[in-house]
Amino acid sequence: MKQKRFFLNEADLPKQWYNIQADMVNKPMPLLNPATKEAIKAEDLYPIFAKELCRQELNQTDRWIDIPDKVREMYAYYRSTPLVRAYGLEKAIGTPAHIYFKNESVSPVGSHKLNSALAQAYYCKEEGITNVTTETGAGQWGAALSYAAKLFGLEAAVYQVKISYEQKPYRRSIMQVFGAQVIPSPSMTTRAGKDILTKDPNHQGSLGTAISEAVELAQMTPNCKYTLGSVMSHVALHQTVIGLEAEKQMEMAGEYPDMVIACFGGGSNFGGISFPFLRHNILEGKKTRFIAAEPASCPKLTKGKFEYDFGDETGYTPLLPMFTLGHKFKPANIHAGGLRYHGAGVIVSQLLKDGLMEAVDIDQLESFKAGCLFAKAEGIIPAPESCHAIAATINEAVKCKESGESKVILFNLSGHGLVDMSSYDQYLAGNLVDYRLSDEEIEKNLAAQD
Amino acid sequence: MKQKRFFLNEADLPKQWYNIQADMVNKPMPLLNPATKEAIKAEDLYPIFAKELCRQELNQTDRWIDIPDKVREMYAYYRSTPLVRAYGLEKAIGTPAHIYFKNESVSPVGSHKLNSALAQAYYCKEEGITNVTTETGAGQWGAALSYAAKLFGLEAAVYQVKISYEQKPYRRSIMQVFGAQVIPSPSMTTRAGKDILTKDPNHQGSLGTAISEAVELAQMTPNCKYTLGSVMSHVALHQTVIGLEAEKQMEMAGEYPDMVIACFGGGSNFGGISFPFLRHNILEGKKTRFIAAEPASCPKLTKGKFEYDFGDETGYTPLLPMFTLGHKFKPANIHAGGLRYHGAGVIVSQLLKDGLMEAVDIDQLESFKAGCLFAKAEGIIPAPESCHAIAATINEAVKCKESGESKVILFNLSGHGLVDMSSYDQYLAGNLVDYRLSDEEIEKNLAAQD
Repeated sequence: MKQKRFFLNEADLPKQWYNIQADMVNKPMPLLNPATKEAIKAEDLYPIFAKELCRQELNQTDRWIDIPDKVREMYAYYRSTPLVRAYGLEKAIGTPAHIYFKNESVSPVGSHKLNSALAQAYYCKEEGITNVTTETGAGQWGAALSYAAKLFGLEAAVYQVKISYEQKPYRRSIMQVFGAQVIPSPSMTTRAGKDILTKDPNHQGSLGTAISEAVELAQMTPNCKYTLGSVMSHVALHQTVIGLEAEKQMEMAGEYPDMVIACFGGGSNFGGISFPFLRHNILEGKKTRFIAAEPASCPKLTKGKFEYDFGDETGYTPLLPMFTLGHKFKPANIHAGGLRYHGAGVIVSQLLKDGLMEAVDIDQLESFKAGCLFAKAEGIIPAPESCHAIAATINEAVKCKESGESKVILFNLSGHGLVDMSSYDQYLAGNLVDYRLSDEEIEKNLAAQD
Repeated sequence: MKQKRFFLNEADLPKQWYNIQADMVNKPMPLLNPATKEAIKAEDLYPIFAKELCRQELNQTDRWIDIPDKVREMYAYYRSTPLVRAYGLEKAIGTPAHIYFKNESVSPVGSHKLNSALAQAYYCKEEGITNVTTETGAGQWGAALSYAAKLFGLEAAVYQVKISYEQKPYRRSIMQVFGAQVIPSPSMTTRAGKDILTKDPNHQGSLGTAISEAVELAQMTPNCKYTLGSVMSHVALHQTVIGLEAEKQMEMAGEYPDMVIACFGGGSNFGGISFPFLRHNILEGKKTRFIAAEPASCPKLTKGKFEYDFGDETGYTPLLPMFTLGHKFKPANIHAGGLRYHGAGVIVSQLLKDGLMEAVDIDQLESFKAGCLFAKAEGIIPAPESCHAIAATINEAVKCKESGESKVILFNLSGHGLVDMSSYDQYLAGNLVDYRLSDEEIEKNLAAQD
């Protein structure tokens, strides 16, 4: 019987996160204070994030960062996640490629997001914080943060992008079961939200908008910090447990990936699975390809500009050197809510600029078609976000079929789609459409920033 | 760091199912032909089920039954499921009890149901069947059968209890993504459904009704067999992989259960986790307690009668010797759809009659309260059915707290509740009620059978 799933013993679980900034030849450019245009120091971020997270954010020297014991203890509740050989998917495609996926959907909250939520909640608790705020799109991050906050005894307030709040009521319920307060964004609870709603009462929200609200609430609330589920370098750092485990698990399977593929919103699951393998490209000259799969309706990597831009719609964050569609960009209402973000994390942006990774864009209908094929072949219904990684994987596997090559493809199944069934319903009913952006629309958006 | 989760290596996965009928001193009484009142032989069941399943159903001699290689190969896609020490729940209760749960919610379709669905689909395929029918309540079994059918290349038609079809639209979508046809029951597609709707156009359906429809469709369709997710002895047989794994995993944890607890609808997850441990009570005089947790609104074990009754509402099945509330019993619209069944499997019924197991009833509100406590403590949102097992576990753990005893409790987390969030919503909003039945109502129901 061929082995399908690979697990690590608890003793072999990573004890440190991997900080790729230490190994990058071209380091990410500094974050800038929007008023002074000076480089941001860790202390400048203290009002927003827990201090240790600020230090991790800007750490460009330490390759390995210890995972605190308490966080490792919580990781052991669901990690290692299985590395799975996708025999069923290979057969369905008829490809000679060897397809593996890292199944992050088995985390208690259904996605990889918990890997960073636990770390962030832990540091907040350690530093005496009592309340945390955050934004969430589809709700994967919000659910993870709500649970992590509860575990560490913190109160959580979550701004959920309005379109997702309405499309995915079950995720809201999940956050509420965990005891979090959930507010649809834009809302009237913040200055940022009020301003946005005044200009556009029908604003459907975006991650950029929700971030503005959550940052503002954190700054207005005593003993409260903001937490973020992607984009930031410290989030990608925590997510490297995915790739570090996968490295050992691929070894158990006796293979090494020719390609590593993940969907892309802000870069947390992509960075998480890629960076540990990418270090072997940087340090040992390996030739693995790293492919980020983004939605064609929000194509910052394939069609955005590399420039300094805000991380949120209102402009509360530092200026970030990144590939962006402009912080005022309003993404179409695709169901992959976690990918509806205008920019890319600064590490990934630098890597893409330097040609160390690639990006492809995937249409909404293609993503759901891929998700349904995967569900039938592997029995797991993927999150609409993860469907983008699956679509990109299928495209590469089909190329292998044409060329007859048995390449090894590893992709990250960032989460399951059990709470996104209404979007599958709409797909099966033929009610979904594509929203591919033209170059003109992208130019117009970038030009329309204030 | 204390170990939280225990897994088996693929080599240690069970190669045989355990057939408790071989070890029972008082064997289950025979199924009867309703017309002749003669004992049913395996051949008599051939028109309904795959032949090998009919033979397994009535096999009272072979203690071990080989798991076919193809089924074992599919089991390895998600088994072993983790045995988890519920440190979080212990802490939340403040109990000295050691609580373990077997986490069947990590199966691709989210519940233990896949263990039997794979076996049933396999035998159907082997015997040249092309189409299968079934019933489903909450949809856990329907989702499992839909996926298993797809894997083995069978067409599946699923009758879903109408109230669940409406309460849980996501489960219907999941079945449809797997390619199954889903019909709310009672429906106009069968004679049984038409008759029921004629008498009561507002009939909300029950498992008994849906079984009638699925059996009828199977008999009217060429090359089609019926499959069942619980009640039957062959289903409990397949589910013994749960307990057989748990036995080895408890050994890894260095403990042996004083109590084994599972929720109870027809008996499949209860039998699955209990029977392998129960054999040590029977053969070696161990004193483990086995506790079935049923809903107070459908209390066949605690308040039903042991008598011959039909397995379905219309009376298509053989007469089964079982604890029952009467096959015309209409369960209240509780959200634990998988527990809305009037009778208990014949093995469990005999065991209960012989005092080899116990049963408790749990109110709906108590079950959701327990589920929310578990979610916050362990991060997993349990299925409303599984909440009953959790509530019974908490009750026993509280007794340990009072007595100061460190008893070892093992319960089965039969599935997750991610697709049942609307019921949690209603619970949190205070919109759910209890439906405890009085003895008079039960008597009236039993007397009202035709």
